[in-house]
Amino acid sequence: MFLQEILTGLNYLGILAFSISGSLKAFEKKLDLLGVLVLGFSTALAGGIVRDVLLGVFPPTSLREVQPPLIAILGSIITVLLYRQLRKIHMAILIADAVGLGAFTATGAEIGLEHGLNLLGTAMIASLTAVGGGVLRDLLSNEIPIVLKRDFYATPTIIGGIVFYFLAQWFGGQTSLILTSVLVTGLRLLAMIRKWELPKVGG
Amino acid sequence: MFLQEILTGLNYLGILAFSISGSLKAFEKKLDLLGVLVLGFSTALAGGIVRDVLLGVFPPTSLREVQPPLIAILGSIITVLLYRQLRKIHMAILIADAVGLGAFTATGAEIGLEHGLNLLGTAMIASLTAVGGGVLRDLLSNEIPIVLKRDFYATPTIIGGIVFYFLAQWFGGQTSLILTSVLVTGLRLLAMIRKWELPKVGG
Amino acid sequence: MFLQEILTGLNYLGILAFSISGSLKAFEKKLDLLGVLVLGFSTALAGGIVRDVLLGVFPPTSLREVQPPLIAILGSIITVLLYRQLRKIHMAILIADAVGLGAFTATGAEIGLEHGLNLLGTAMIASLTAVGGGVLRDLLSNEIPIVLKRDFYATPTIIGGIVFYFLAQWFGGQTSLILTSVLVTGLRLLAMIRKWELPKVGG
Repeated sequence: MFLQEILTGLNYLGILAFSISGSLKAFEKKLDLLGVLVLGFSTALAGGIVRDVLLGVFPPTSLREVQPPLIAILGSIITVLLYRQLRKIHMAILIADAVGLGAFTATGAEIGLEHGLNLLGTAMIASLTAVGGGVLRDLLSNEIPIVLKRDFYATPTIIGGIVFYFLAQWFGGQTSLILTSVLVTGLRLLAMIRKWELPKVGG
Repeated sequence: MFLQEILTGLNYLGILAFSISGSLKAFEKKLDLLGVLVLGFSTALAGGIVRDVLLGVFPPTSLREVQPPLIAILGSIITVLLYRQLRKIHMAILIADAVGLGAFTATGAEIGLEHGLNLLGTAMIASLTAVGGGVLRDLLSNEIPIVLKRDFYATPTIIGGIVFYFLAQWFGGQTSLILTSVLVTGLRLLAMIRKWELPKVGG
Repeated sequence: MFLQEILTGLNYLGILAFSISGSLKAFEKKLDLLGVLVLGFSTALAGGIVRDVLLGVFPPTSLREVQPPLIAILGSIITVLLYRQLRKIHMAILIADAVGLGAFTATGAEIGLEHGLNLLGTAMIASLTAVGGGVLRDLLSNEIPIVLKRDFYATPTIIGGIVFYFLAQWFGGQTSLILTSVLVTGLRLLAMIRKWELPKVGG
C-alpha cells in the first residue's frame, strides 16, 4: 500500500512534467491560452486515455478522477506564470519527465497484464501509455513525433513493458511496478547523460 | 419530447455545417472527390465518435444510425455542387457552424453526465464532442488545429460543459440541454461579432 | 474452414505488406530504428485496432494475438535488411498491398455486420479497417494522408464494404468474405494498371 502511494506520486509528477512539456510546445508555436491548456492536457493525459480505451476501461481514469486533469491544468498554469524561469530549471523538468516516463510505463504494463495481454501486447500498451501523450502533442503541433526521430526515449518504455511482464510472474505486482518504474527512469536518464541514440536509417 | 426534437434538429444542422466546413477544406487542399467526402465525414462525425468511444458506447451512434452519415454526405454533395455559391453564403455557414457547436456541446455534456463524469470530465467530453471533428479535419489537412491558434471557438464549449453540469442539477435534462446549446451558440456568435480572442503566448 | 484459413493468410500477407510500406516511409523520413518499427506497426495494425475500438472489441485483436505484431515486426526487419533490394520488388509489394487491402476490407465488413451495423456503417468500418493504418502512417510522417489525395485507393474499400453487406444476405459469410476480398484487390490492381484517378477539386 505504501508502494502504491509512491507510484501514484510518481505518476502525478509525470502528469505535471508532461503537461509542462506540452504547454511549453504551445509557447513555441505561439498558440493562445487555450492552446496552452489543450496541449498541456493532451500531453499529460492522452497516453493514459488511449491505454484505457484500448483495454475497454470506460470512462477512462482521467475523465473519471479529479486529480489527473487538475494536475494537468496546474502544469499549464505553472508554464504560463513561470515561462521565463522554466528555462533555468530545464534539467529539473527533464528529470521529472523521465520519472513520469517510468511511472506511466509501469502503470500501463500492469493494467495491460491485468487485462490478459501477452508479452507483445504488454510491451505495446506500456509504451503507448508512456509516449502517447507526447506523440499527440507533436501531431497537434504539426510535427513528426519526436520519439520517432530522436533519442533513446520510447525504447526504455518498450524494454520496461517486457521486463514488467517477466517480473510480474516472479514478484508481486507492487514490487514489479516500482522496479520497472525505476529501470525505465534510469535508462532514460542514462540515455540523456550518455547521449545514446538509435541508428538512423535512410541516410 | 418537443425540446428533444428541437435539439436533434440543431444537431443535424451542426452535422451539415461541419461537413461543409470539412468539404471546403478539401477544396482548399485540392484533394480528390473522396477527400471531400472523407473530410466532410470526419469533421461532421469524429467529435461524436470520439465521445462515444471514450464513454464506452458501442458501436458509436454515427455508425449505428443512418441520419448522421447521410447528412454528412449531403454536406459534401452540397459543397461539390454549389462550391462557388457557398462563398456568398459564408455568413450563413458560420452561423450554422455556431449552432452545431452549441448542439454538440450540450449533447456531449449530457451523455457525459449520464455516464457519471464529474465537472472536469463533463467539460472535457462536451468540448471534445464539439471541436473533435474540426481538430481531425485540420490534422488530416496537415495543419495545426485552428482551435489551438485562433478565435474564441473552443472556449464556449468548455464553458458550456461546465454550465450544463450545474444546470442539470437544478433543471431537468431537457431544459439544460436547450439552455446550454443557446448559451454556447450565443457566445460563439458574440465572439465572431466582437472579434474576441484569447491572449497569445510565446510572442 | 478452408476458406477461413485462406482469408487469414491473405490478412497476414496484408499485415506484412502494410508494415513494409510503413517501414519504407520511415526510411524516406530518415527516422531511427525505432521509428521504422513504430511506423511499420502503426501502418500494419492501426486499421484493425481502430475497427475493434469502434466496435467495442477489447482488447483489440492485435494486442491479444501474437501473430499480427510478430508479422508487423517481420515487415520492419525485412525492410531494414533488404532496403536496397525492396526497390527491385516494388511491384510485388504493391500487389501484396492490394491483397491486404482486400482482405482487411472483407474482414472489417464482416466484423462490422456481426456487430449490427447498417449499410453505411459497414462501408465505413470496412474502409477504416483497410486504410486506417495508412492514414496513421502519413499523419505520423507529417503528411496529408495519401488516400485523400491520390489514386483509386480507398474507393475500392468503400465499394467492398457495400458489396459485402449485400452478399452476406444472399451467401454465407465465408463466400462473401472471399468474393469481397477478391473484388477489392481486383479493383485496386485494375486502378493501378489503368491509372484510374478520382476527379480533383478546387483546381
